[in-house]
Amino acid sequence: MRKKIAVDMDNVLVDIEKHFIDWYEKEYGLRIEQEKLLGVPEEEGFPDKEAVKRFLYTPGFFRTAPIMNGAIKAMEILCKKFDIYIVSAAMEFPQSLIEKVEWLKEHFPAISWKNIVLCGDKSVIHCDYLIDDHIKNLDFFRGQPLLFSASHNIHHTHHKRLNNWEEVLNYFESI
Amino acid sequence: MRKKIAVDMDNVLVDIEKHFIDWYEKEYGLRIEQEKLLGVPEEEGFPDKEAVKRFLYTPGFFRTAPIMNGAIKAMEILCKKFDIYIVSAAMEFPQSLIEKVEWLKEHFPAISWKNIVLCGDKSVIHCDYLIDDHIKNLDFFRGQPLLFSASHNIHHTHHKRLNNWEEVLNYFESI
Repeated sequence: MRKKIAVDMDNVLVDIEKHFIDWYEKEYGLRIEQEKLLGVPEEEGFPDKEAVKRFLYTPGFFRTAPIMNGAIKAMEILCKKFDIYIVSAAMEFPQSLIEKVEWLKEHFPAISWKNIVLCGDKSVIHCDYLIDDHIKNLDFFRGQPLLFSASHNIHHTHHKRLNNWEEVLNYFESI
Repeated sequence: MRKKIAVDMDNVLVDIEKHFIDWYEKEYGLRIEQEKLLGVPEEEGFPDKEAVKRFLYTPGFFRTAPIMNGAIKAMEILCKKFDIYIVSAAMEFPQSLIEKVEWLKEHFPAISWKNIVLCGDKSVIHCDYLIDDHIKNLDFFRGQPLLFSASHNIHHTHHKRLNNWEEVLNYFESI
């Protein structure tokens, strides 16, 4: 039986960190260096601490986000051997629901609607693997948790870390 | 640790069958008796076999659906002892995503966004119980499947059947 991989969207398929930096620059005229975001929650890396939260509730924010480097090629390869489920904690931002579905349809048209899960708390998700940037999602996961590197999570050490999509592919080739 | 109950929306929290009958009457001037829907897939119980599918894609259909009898009181009682997750296979109808969230917010305001899951295939959901009207969701469920009666499922016998919310309450009081 094919194993199931749950794949997070923001900071995994979606380069939401770059999108925060771009939107911040567009609105405030100030480009924040990525180093400022290292080891702190995303909203705290920016001079205006309210900006990130506001972006998250702004229509169009999720729909226009860029794709994470290497994600398209890696997903094409993984799809051949695994059942991939996209699992995004989108429920806090209801306007994002349709935007996330449309974003996936545009950038990952091979993913069926059957394999998309938009939720709040991910503790009720059961797959064999979860690739996610948030410890809160990985800590209670029943399968193998895989921490996808993002600036905010660089100090966490208690999960298997994969720094980018190339490392994800290497991991799944090695198991 | 509190046990988790996954609760389906259509035909469980939402009286979608009544809504189909009401919309059909409004559009075609013909009220279909519920007996016509017994033991057949929902779309086949109506003279125009395309009507149900069309309603499912019509903006406003899910948002205006009536609540299932007894659901509000039963959910209030169950919430005290169990963690309730609303799990709806909404992804086939993307326009329904925001409508379902808004419907829940109106009729079940106590349910947190953290406890809402909108998905395609429910096989990746893990809770202790699933209350659902569809065999396809219950057959692959890892916990205890509970079949909520709907006209289309009356001939199925291989899951524990609960005919209405009163029987749901009795079941959870008895275990």
